[in-house]
Amino acid sequence: EYIARVTGIPTMAKLPYQDTADGLDAAFIGVPIDTGTAYRPGARFGPRQIRMESAVLRSYNSGTRAAPYESLVVADIGDVNVNVYDLKDTCRRIRETYRKVLASGCIPLTMGGDHTISYPILQAVAEKYGPVGLIHVDAHPDTSDVVLGEKIGNATPFRRCVEDGLLDCKRVVQIGLRGSAYSADSFEWSRAQGFRVVQVEECWFKSLAPLMDEVRSQMGSGPVYMSFDIDALDPSFAPGTGVPEIAGLTSIQGVEIIRGCRGLSLVGCDLVEVSPPYDTTGNTAVTAVNLLFEMLCVLPNMKYY
Amino acid sequence: EYIARVTGIPTMAKLPYQDTADGLDAAFIGVPIDTGTAYRPGARFGPRQIRMESAVLRSYNSGTRAAPYESLVVADIGDVNVNVYDLKDTCRRIRETYRKVLASGCIPLTMGGDHTISYPILQAVAEKYGPVGLIHVDAHPDTSDVVLGEKIGNATPFRRCVEDGLLDCKRVVQIGLRGSAYSADSFEWSRAQGFRVVQVEECWFKSLAPLMDEVRSQMGSGPVYMSFDIDALDPSFAPGTGVPEIAGLTSIQGVEIIRGCRGLSLVGCDLVEVSPPYDTTGNTAVTAVNLLFEMLCVLPNMKYY
Amino acid sequence: EYIARVTGIPTMAKLPYQDTADGLDAAFIGVPIDTGTAYRPGARFGPRQIRMESAVLRSYNSGTRAAPYESLVVADIGDVNVNVYDLKDTCRRIRETYRKVLASGCIPLTMGGDHTISYPILQAVAEKYGPVGLIHVDAHPDTSDVVLGEKIGNATPFRRCVEDGLLDCKRVVQIGLRGSAYSADSFEWSRAQGFRVVQVEECWFKSLAPLMDEVRSQMGSGPVYMSFDIDALDPSFAPGTGVPEIAGLTSIQGVEIIRGCRGLSLVGCDLVEVSPPYDTTGNTAVTAVNLLFEMLCVLPNMKYY
Amino acid sequence: EYIARVTGIPTMAKLPYQDTADGLDAAFIGVPIDTGTAYRPGARFGPRQIRMESAVLRSYNSGTRAAPYESLVVADIGDVNVNVYDLKDTCRRIRETYRKVLASGCIPLTMGGDHTISYPILQAVAEKYGPVGLIHVDAHPDTSDVVLGEKIGNATPFRRCVEDGLLDCKRVVQIGLRGSAYSADSFEWSRAQGFRVVQVEECWFKSLAPLMDEVRSQMGSGPVYMSFDIDALDPSFAPGTGVPEIAGLTSIQGVEIIRGCRGLSLVGCDLVEVSPPYDTTGNTAVTAVNLLFEMLCVLPNMKYY
Amino acid sequence: EYIARVTGIPTMAKLPYQDTADGLDAAFIGVPIDTGTAYRPGARFGPRQIRMESAVLRSYNSGTRAAPYESLVVADIGDVNVNVYDLKDTCRRIRETYRKVLASGCIPLTMGGDHTISYPILQAVAEKYGPVGLIHVDAHPDTSDVVLGEKIGNATPFRRCVEDGLLDCKRVVQIGLRGSAYSADSFEWSRAQGFRVVQVEECWFKSLAPLMDEVRSQMGSGPVYMSFDIDALDPSFAPGTGVPEIAGLTSIQGVEIIRGCRGLSLVGCDLVEVSPPYDTTGNTAVTAVNLLFEMLCVLPNMKYY
Amino acid sequence: EYIARVTGIPTMAKLPYQDTADGLDAAFIGVPIDTGTAYRPGARFGPRQIRMESAVLRSYNSGTRAAPYESLVVADIGDVNVNVYDLKDTCRRIRETYRKVLASGCIPLTMGGDHTISYPILQAVAEKYGPVGLIHVDAHPDTSDVVLGEKIGNATPFRRCVEDGLLDCKRVVQIGLRGSAYSADSFEWSRAQGFRVVQVEECWFKSLAPLMDEVRSQMGSGPVYMSFDIDALDPSFAPGTGVPEIAGLTSIQGVEIIRGCRGLSLVGCDLVEVSPPYDTTGNTAVTAVNLLFEMLCVLPNMKYY
Ligand SMILES: [Mn+2]
Ligand SMILES: [Mn+2]
Ligand SMILES: [Mn+2]
Ligand SMILES: [Mn+2]
Ligand SMILES: [Mn+2]
Ligand SMILES: [Mn+2]
Ligand SMILES: [Mn+2]
Ligand SMILES: [Mn+2]
Ligand SMILES: [Mn+2]
Ligand SMILES: [Mn+2]
Ligand SMILES: [Mn+2]
Ligand SMILES: [Mn+2]
Repeated sequence: EYIARVTGIPTMAKLPYQDTADGLDAAFIGVPIDTGTAYRPGARFGPRQIRMESAVLRSYNSGTRAAPYESLVVADIGDVNVNVYDLKDTCRRIRETYRKVLASGCIPLTMGGDHTISYPILQAVAEKYGPVGLIHVDAHPDTSDVVLGEKIGNATPFRRCVEDGLLDCKRVVQIGLRGSAYSADSFEWSRAQGFRVVQVEECWFKSLAPLMDEVRSQMGSGPVYMSFDIDALDPSFAPGTGVPEIAGLTSIQGVEIIRGCRGLSLVGCDLVEVSPPYDTTGNTAVTAVNLLFEMLCVLPNMKYY
Repeated sequence: EYIARVTGIPTMAKLPYQDTADGLDAAFIGVPIDTGTAYRPGARFGPRQIRMESAVLRSYNSGTRAAPYESLVVADIGDVNVNVYDLKDTCRRIRETYRKVLASGCIPLTMGGDHTISYPILQAVAEKYGPVGLIHVDAHPDTSDVVLGEKIGNATPFRRCVEDGLLDCKRVVQIGLRGSAYSADSFEWSRAQGFRVVQVEECWFKSLAPLMDEVRSQMGSGPVYMSFDIDALDPSFAPGTGVPEIAGLTSIQGVEIIRGCRGLSLVGCDLVEVSPPYDTTGNTAVTAVNLLFEMLCVLPNMKYY
Repeated sequence: EYIARVTGIPTMAKLPYQDTADGLDAAFIGVPIDTGTAYRPGARFGPRQIRMESAVLRSYNSGTRAAPYESLVVADIGDVNVNVYDLKDTCRRIRETYRKVLASGCIPLTMGGDHTISYPILQAVAEKYGPVGLIHVDAHPDTSDVVLGEKIGNATPFRRCVEDGLLDCKRVVQIGLRGSAYSADSFEWSRAQGFRVVQVEECWFKSLAPLMDEVRSQMGSGPVYMSFDIDALDPSFAPGTGVPEIAGLTSIQGVEIIRGCRGLSLVGCDLVEVSPPYDTTGNTAVTAVNLLFEMLCVLPNMKYY
Repeated sequence: EYIARVTGIPTMAKLPYQDTADGLDAAFIGVPIDTGTAYRPGARFGPRQIRMESAVLRSYNSGTRAAPYESLVVADIGDVNVNVYDLKDTCRRIRETYRKVLASGCIPLTMGGDHTISYPILQAVAEKYGPVGLIHVDAHPDTSDVVLGEKIGNATPFRRCVEDGLLDCKRVVQIGLRGSAYSADSFEWSRAQGFRVVQVEECWFKSLAPLMDEVRSQMGSGPVYMSFDIDALDPSFAPGTGVPEIAGLTSIQGVEIIRGCRGLSLVGCDLVEVSPPYDTTGNTAVTAVNLLFEMLCVLPNMKYY
Repeated sequence: EYIARVTGIPTMAKLPYQDTADGLDAAFIGVPIDTGTAYRPGARFGPRQIRMESAVLRSYNSGTRAAPYESLVVADIGDVNVNVYDLKDTCRRIRETYRKVLASGCIPLTMGGDHTISYPILQAVAEKYGPVGLIHVDAHPDTSDVVLGEKIGNATPFRRCVEDGLLDCKRVVQIGLRGSAYSADSFEWSRAQGFRVVQVEECWFKSLAPLMDEVRSQMGSGPVYMSFDIDALDPSFAPGTGVPEIAGLTSIQGVEIIRGCRGLSLVGCDLVEVSPPYDTTGNTAVTAVNLLFEMLCVLPNMKYY
Repeated sequence: EYIARVTGIPTMAKLPYQDTADGLDAAFIGVPIDTGTAYRPGARFGPRQIRMESAVLRSYNSGTRAAPYESLVVADIGDVNVNVYDLKDTCRRIRETYRKVLASGCIPLTMGGDHTISYPILQAVAEKYGPVGLIHVDAHPDTSDVVLGEKIGNATPFRRCVEDGLLDCKRVVQIGLRGSAYSADSFEWSRAQGFRVVQVEECWFKSLAPLMDEVRSQMGSGPVYMSFDIDALDPSFAPGTGVPEIAGLTSIQGVEIIRGCRGLSLVGCDLVEVSPPYDTTGNTAVTAVNLLFEMLCVLPNMKYY
């Protein structure tokens, strides 16, 4: 029978909801926090809005001919039960939830939430897989040591990851960095760790497919995590975020980056920093929905027609 | 354990979701259509938006001390699978769905959707209970014979209900009628059927508690259905609707009308015409959420502290 | 044949458009300026937006049973061709246009535009009728002598009118005045002229029907002009205006004031200060549309069913 | 005399309004429906909003030096009187209206409305001209057989056109197709008919002028119809539409496609799927206004300075 | 010389800015946090938005004829330098800042920020004045013991104040309480402390002047603090807030409550929970601006004309 | 100590405020007018909104490694005290203010306001430096002779500048011109003066770095003024402006143009036509903030790491 898109409880992509990751190859999971945010909040409502706008999705990918639901068992497993009053306790809850999800062999596709969450997720990921490669797409390096005196927040996750040995630093790439900065060379620390830094100026006016060829070489066959901050995209594509920076990536380049991950051993992905109160056109959430679908469509064992 | 309001799949009032009404005393159910609308559409997204904003609800009613979840078993049973291309087929689907819901002994609390839906709902209701009393809160009488040549639509449901004998016409009241009209006496037909018509001018500047005393007498002990068009409220309270009319009821009066139904034999309620694309403040949905909660809190067998 | 409300070129109330007032009993006319505005502009788009939202109007008044189009020949005669770079020249153009409109015996119903326009309109009106009574509904007295060194603007029209002898000062009432002010008694000048000043505090919580009984006595049988600044209404009803002041009139009171003019010798009306860029809910224009319709419905020679 | 842009009844491009197409070389005409829409409605207000925003237009094209009003007699001939309750009857009304418009030798430039309308328009067009070439710009192929059990709707028009023999299939091109899909090869049917399909991936990062050289060859000298769905553009340019798909065409590419039609035997054009309730920036309508002006500027017999 | 309202750095009420409270009778001060918020954030931008919209203020109060700047030396003393990552540290910073402000003999008029801030402010206040009377205007009692396991937050400040002995409990009144609740009698604890609880139902449809007569008696001549949560007002007046509850106070009643404090020994006032990202009409900030001005106009030693 | 970005009085870039330009190398200064605007107003609130959104700025430029505050003494010197009722008097006030600013040796970075302001600014600039080179980035040439009968306005400044001999016409470039026009060759006059005109079609799909190489040659070592109308950017980047034209420059190209001015003898810059009431996403102001920061970062004597 036909089912109209306007009907139904809003799960991600209208997938079935289940409590745990048992039996799943991949799962959409929400982490609704913004307490790691020093400027504009609102990302706590990211998962809710992404689920609602996901009614626009259909089941195949016309650009890549991927057949995600023929290839993998996928569900929406709800949200981590965050503690909005204690960011560190929230990090603990995230870590523990992801441990369980990963233990079941499931690949988590995370709907953020602010970027703080990538740190506890990567703790759980590295616990299972060891230090992983990282494809980090963002306007900001998120490698500050402290912000306003605090070690945990959405500007520090990848500093913490390096300190904890969660990343295989030669297999880390940061794409889209730009904007005004707190120091003259704000990307120096990244480079010193061995990260490849791709400033946005290197991306202007061109396809990122060649870049992604290089990234695939860099990543090799080891486990890779993708962390996509929606603010990597230009604010014209993603107004609904906390710290917009102009002259950013296009959504085409965002799609190219994700499609360029085909063939990698992806062990998890996140899409963070969608802030619905600032998403006046609604298209930031629509964009997040599509980028998450593209992530699903490059997971290992995907069938393409 | 504490569960943050920002988490979770958005069911109405964060209630459990189940497919059928089995075992329920009352159920929230959505009917996401606006194809009965001649002017501004958008009500098809009413149920989705109401569910999303319902995260603001808690479990008790501080104004009436009702304890709805201690009194009744309630769930969200999803949406009628409407046919967005065939309004008459949608009406058939609604009627059949409500037959089943009512057969199980459950009281449906409907989230519309445009006002067309009250007709097929009342067909199912009258099939079970015989002609019912009706408390119809609206800016408009919705008793047109035809609109643009068509018998079925959001301006005609109560004409159709009378023709089908679904209403006990002496036990019908229409509250809040106003605005520019298609004829000099646009409420004449209503009065000719024996309806009580309460134009909005009778409501200005005062509590509707005395009116509701009279309405309870009018309704007596027989089965009563409540149909609440959000446009009964003034546009300052409910901008998100299809045909706003100024100088309307306040949300206080809306609450009074519903609380004034305590003690009646309510067999069903609907809240219709919330149009999210026009709800720029978001408060039309918030208002609908609270009115639906107030409806739940006056159902038979409610416990009050 | 049925004509759907969504179709057609947007004239006011879907009335026919004609170039002049010839043959008309009443005419809607726009004056699209905001160059008399010292704070938030945007009222230049008032006429355009009012016309667009007027598609919601039908032809009878359900509250008063007026039949305006059975009683009077009415049309939309377009806009005064204002000079957006020269406010004084615009005033001249308004005055000349209204002379012609009035010469034809037509009653102008003006869609503003900022409140500056009432001055040249009243010049034309008084030229024909002599000093007139004035029902001025506003949050502000608009009787400043100079603003930022300038004599002509939206804070000064009624000072200028008095200086020019256009008003019968004993037959002037100002309703709804409030807000922070430039002097300790900002309404002193009004009272000194013999105006009746009804501060908003006198209007709170009650029907204005008794007030309007008094106003009708005050006005007597002489010619009366009504000037309605939408900011008289509380910002909850009319967010789209230049200088919102809280704790204002309700739209119910606005309707009562206009309906209370029934029986007066109205020779012209204006509805000013609708600023569409600030009308985020769209309801300021919807309210203006309905208030203009109510004005039409109390013109002399109206038939009521 | 100078006429300020802020004045006047909003016809398209401030052109004169006339009832019929008599004496016109080209005419703007509205078809205000969205009843063919399965997801987000609102396109019924497309013509009204396009007319309102068209005040921004001037009379020459600075990019192409076209002088449309020196070349052609053009007017706004209002809207088809659609039946919002019966999509098939609306299609009949469209077909009949366009028959008359075309009979007068006038080229219709249509302001939609949802994409359903291209089917009845093309019925009238093919009746006069025989099977025509088609330049179809869209994110979606709109060649579904049935949607939710229904043959007529905004996802099916070009399937119906082919079945009715209205198109010269070798002279059909579809540009901009993308997004998630209902089948693994959702564009297969198009290709099987002989259509040229230009997926959006072929358009990324480059001028479409070379593509349009090929399209002009493909179209030859026979009659050509252009159908431009605003959702072909990326949502950053056109947020106000029903089914946004990311990574779309730029408005520059949209302009290039239309300018690339210069020299073709265009017999009609439409611009569809502008949905004002979702056009929060207002720029979707502004874009539509400019694209319609560009269409006018490539009609046969245009003079270029 | 004239100074146009559109010019200038946005301080509150265009007052001079100074670093400390030295020499001031009263000072506007911001506390830009929302980290005490469990649901919708955004109040961290309250002070900034209130300052911006305060350009609409003039210098006298036309309703009460107060002359605040002739009576008192007032300035904007900026914001407490909050710690967005540590709510308890922020509380310490607030407390210390207010100690200094109060030490200088200045009355602080606080622009919030979420309601958490009233607790550390009252700590500083009680340190100076001993237990104070409290006029608490709010939709919510804010007397929870813990929220999501946490003692400090915007739902708990007055519980903490009582525990710390900061309040003279017989001189506490809570006005406007309503909405769904976490327990059957959610206001029981308040009553048990000796607070007067005025549920919103007692306020509907009437002037609160008589209530305020009683409140003044209750407060006597001792020191009084006023804490005004903007959500006390109905969402039609104040959409821009975190937890809107329908059927609330009108802005008229809000003004009456504040004006009713004239003659009391006010030692401080706050206006909290304005959340600009949700203030789509902008009028929540405009309302806050005016309520803060009314607070200023009832401070001790005010001159009235 | 850490200072959270959410705190503080909003000066531009959180710089110190001072009354005069004394001791400054560069100063941000606002000119809040829109009275030179014939279509959509609102630019009078540009400076206020730009200041507010500038909280997002940090102190270094990650793209160019400029260290503006290590290189230059910079402050916010407030707004010119414009006369909103007399555009010519406003021009006089601007001219006199800039004379003083320039006399102190300070480089003004102007936050508009509509484009009219560039004329009196350039009068003051040329008085000091003689005829200057001009880099004019805009969708429109702004070289009309009269608009609606008026010589002074936002469509005429550069005509006036040429007439007054303020420009070294061989060292003038206009970049980004496009849109519908008032004459067949609307850029003819510009070319006749010796200006280089770069229509937007020459900019599509490519980096403007090569163009800027040529512009630097054209400008040579003489004094150069940059005037950047935000409408040069495509409306997807800058919806908040008065006369949007589609198919415009990207914000990347806007950044390239400014960065391409490095090494020139810049004596002043302005960023005009930001209209906050139309900036529904807020990103027009965010973009303006960043472009102004980029301008600061190419001033003479800048240090780059
Ligand atoms: Mn990040
Ligand atoms: Mn980021
Ligand atoms: Mn209704
Ligand atoms: Mn109804
Ligand atoms: Mn006024
Ligand atoms: Mn006013
Ligand atoms: Mn289409
Ligand atoms: Mn499409
Ligand atoms: Mn509170
Ligand atoms: Mn509260
Ligand atoms: Mn310009
Ligand atoms: Mn321009």
